[in-house]
Amino acid sequence: MKRIVAVLVLASFAGVSFAQQTLKPEEMIKIRKSGYSFMAWNMSKIKANLDGTFNKDQVIAAANVVAATANSGMGALFGPGTEKDVGDQKTRVKPEFFQQQEKVKEVAMNYIKEANELAKVAATGDVTAIKAQFGKTGGACKACHDDFRKE
Amino acid sequence: MKRIVAVLVLASFAGVSFAQQTLKPEEMIKIRKSGYSFMAWNMSKIKANLDGTFNKDQVIAAANVVAATANSGMGALFGPGTEKDVGDQKTRVKPEFFQQQEKVKEVAMNYIKEANELAKVAATGDVTAIKAQFGKTGGACKACHDDFRKE
Repeated sequence: MKRIVAVLVLASFAGVSFAQQTLKPEEMIKIRKSGYSFMAWNMSKIKANLDGTFNKDQVIAAANVVAATANSGMGALFGPGTEKDVGDQKTRVKPEFFQQQEKVKEVAMNYIKEANELAKVAATGDVTAIKAQFGKTGGACKACHDDFRKE
Repeated sequence: MKRIVAVLVLASFAGVSFAQQTLKPEEMIKIRKSGYSFMAWNMSKIKANLDGTFNKDQVIAAANVVAATANSGMGALFGPGTEKDVGDQKTRVKPEFFQQQEKVKEVAMNYIKEANELAKVAATGDVTAIKAQFGKTGGACKACHDDFRKE
């Protein structure tokens, strides 16, 4: 089962093996979209801090959400049956996501790396460094969107 | 650090704004529900580990999401206009949430405290301690649901 292998490969990014509850496809879609939405809010807070008044504690808190989300093994949420809309749960993931395992692994690994670096840099409070790392992290998000997300 | 985060959260409940993007009520409802959904998935992973095969790394990763979410200043997502459904965005928050600010602060502070303790205890890998702290954290979630969430 190619797809199951892909999920296991993704899960291995965060260094986890599965003690996993059984989720329905529509639940996987809902939860992964929730994770990305909530992370996007936190990315937007960092941007607002970089563009406006900088509050170190808010940036650290937001970067910790981004890193924790990246580390949470979301590959498990792309299981069989989640390639397409399921009932009310719409997905924008492209078929290529489930076919190009090596490429997916590459973009996922890079995103995890940059997100963890963002949390590390945020903790220093160095605004210039945070700005640079925020750009890299956003770029890592965009790389996946460009290849694997529909408009 | 914990105290600073707590102050941030309290400030956001009190309507003190930090560098913050402007969100529409429907966006606030969507994002806060996303945060809770994604956190619930991570809580359920911890439960699956406690009930089945225990994987320390997965539990740490999940507990870090729970703590980071708790620390993220979600009070900012309960702004004016979010007391009721807005278009497609349904909310189960009770009117009492917006009326009993002292009680809300109390349950929110307790949830933040227990979530941070969960991440701390998870890092030790002590299964008995994690089980106890998982119960306290779940209890802190439930305290808010009981008082401020509709069935």
